[in-house]
Amino acid sequence: MIKVGIVGYGNLGRGVEKNIKNFKDFELVGVFSRRDGVKTDSGVASFKMSELENFKGKIDVLILCGGSANDLREQSPAIVKNFNIVDSFDNHAFINDHYKEVDASAKSGGKIAIISVGWDPGLFSLNRIIGSAVLPNSKTYTFWGKGVSQGHSDAIRRIKGVKDARQYTIPSKTALDTVRSGDLKEFSTKEKHTRECFVVLENDTADERKRVEHEIKTMPNYFEPYDTTVNFISEDELLRDHAGLPHGGVVITSGITGKNCKQIYEFSLNLDSNPEFTSSVMIAYARAAYRLSKNGESGARTIAQIAPYLISDMSLEDMRVKGMI
Amino acid sequence: MIKVGIVGYGNLGRGVEKNIKNFKDFELVGVFSRRDGVKTDSGVASFKMSELENFKGKIDVLILCGGSANDLREQSPAIVKNFNIVDSFDNHAFINDHYKEVDASAKSGGKIAIISVGWDPGLFSLNRIIGSAVLPNSKTYTFWGKGVSQGHSDAIRRIKGVKDARQYTIPSKTALDTVRSGDLKEFSTKEKHTRECFVVLENDTADERKRVEHEIKTMPNYFEPYDTTVNFISEDELLRDHAGLPHGGVVITSGITGKNCKQIYEFSLNLDSNPEFTSSVMIAYARAAYRLSKNGESGARTIAQIAPYLISDMSLEDMRVKGMI
Repeated sequence: MIKVGIVGYGNLGRGVEKNIKNFKDFELVGVFSRRDGVKTDSGVASFKMSELENFKGKIDVLILCGGSANDLREQSPAIVKNFNIVDSFDNHAFINDHYKEVDASAKSGGKIAIISVGWDPGLFSLNRIIGSAVLPNSKTYTFWGKGVSQGHSDAIRRIKGVKDARQYTIPSKTALDTVRSGDLKEFSTKEKHTRECFVVLENDTADERKRVEHEIKTMPNYFEPYDTTVNFISEDELLRDHAGLPHGGVVITSGITGKNCKQIYEFSLNLDSNPEFTSSVMIAYARAAYRLSKNGESGARTIAQIAPYLISDMSLEDMRVKGMI
Repeated sequence: MIKVGIVGYGNLGRGVEKNIKNFKDFELVGVFSRRDGVKTDSGVASFKMSELENFKGKIDVLILCGGSANDLREQSPAIVKNFNIVDSFDNHAFINDHYKEVDASAKSGGKIAIISVGWDPGLFSLNRIIGSAVLPNSKTYTFWGKGVSQGHSDAIRRIKGVKDARQYTIPSKTALDTVRSGDLKEFSTKEKHTRECFVVLENDTADERKRVEHEIKTMPNYFEPYDTTVNFISEDELLRDHAGLPHGGVVITSGITGKNCKQIYEFSLNLDSNPEFTSSVMIAYARAAYRLSKNGESGARTIAQIAPYLISDMSLEDMRVKGMI
């Protein structure tokens, strides 16, 4: 059994806790949090972060579920000195800096870190790399959604008279169809996505609807450049139909081989729960971290460096015999 | 420059020859064929297979483009004693046997073989493995098409009165939509695909059409169990509209995380030219074979064992800096 611990108990940490039972070779030792006396959903033990050092040698991999903005830049290099880790650091602009810091710490402690694991960065990265490697004469497009954008939902909630709101980012069907046809047109992020808003008003009148819709649609950067749809609903409807955290997206590499053969490589995810799926990817890559560490390796890795069989519970022979390959 | 040779000069070998110019770090040394005096499309040198031994130490990787039925089971283990190879052995039932034979030979010669490289087996295998690893509580579905089936086209051509024919295998929209909705229904191969036929008659009359259509639709195994459509066209139309070798397909892993969150992982290819795309995948994996060999490794590998960055011409740092990851 691979013994894992969860560091950070938000949506992602809870996702790991919920999903770990589907991974039969894993055992959850506990949840580590900055908060004291955390009551876990599953009843698994919780500990303060300061107790982590008592678990040296008793946990094979720690799954870091903190946020990229405030937690991981400090936590990952610090924790990897004593433990193998997987993190989901997702700020593309700083991944190289984060990698270097984590790599130095991991090597000094003789531990393995797999960083930026999830779907983007993560499985989407993998497909951008493979797609452009097999189709060098190509362009790669990334579309996000359909999914909830927390930042855009918050922006609507800040408008006067809005009680609650949920905003979905949706890939533009026109842009998707164009790319899928093999047309190598350039698109801006704005052209590739539309925005759909569900809004609950404090005071639901025709005038209020008109005013709030106008404020949303003309909000610079957030909504003004996009094709935006605004729907007004009741609070009950919002809670009933829009409580989840769905997300997903599409990565398409469109290339030409030979004289003029269009070749379309497409990867997509359609997820009912963004944090639960991300946590599931992290558990699979924790298996790879465990194996690499057992093999005496150390240092930081991105998903590009992990041979795919390392994340599977099947043996290489089983894959060949059972026709997976 | 990575020096490669092509073994076998059919559709796949010609695909490698056409595509290699898109891979800037590759140099094509020549084409090797059982036939004497092969005239190549690009003018690159051609040699008899018996001359291969003169190229020991002068070619980094041989790309084996023979057929799985008659060539590769013998060629791959024989050739890998002296050269690194990539092959596209695609008979799933015998991949494990083939692997063992190639592995033993490769180790005896200190060479690397990457076998069963293409899209299925190949990129589809990769996605079956990754999809089921990240979603252990899941089912994986494979759909083929839209693409030409050579075997089914031949079966129609054998009917009396048929001058020429082309058969396309097409994923069933109903089955695809069901799987994409997260419904974990079981489907037989027959339920997942429909068949579309384009037929040229020797003597195009209403009676002949009726008879041939009936013979096609009632042909056991090939067409009878499927939803089959028959179109009669002129020979000119067949040559104009159906001369290519398009193919592709879809691999979907549909899983549940947590209580009841549906998570859909989908990979698809839509290819104007099946052999040109397959050849392009093989060239990318020849890059990995070259690197593994330079690193002192030997033996057989499947695509599951190749860390993705090994097939890319980008450095790991570039991937991180440029936001690929």
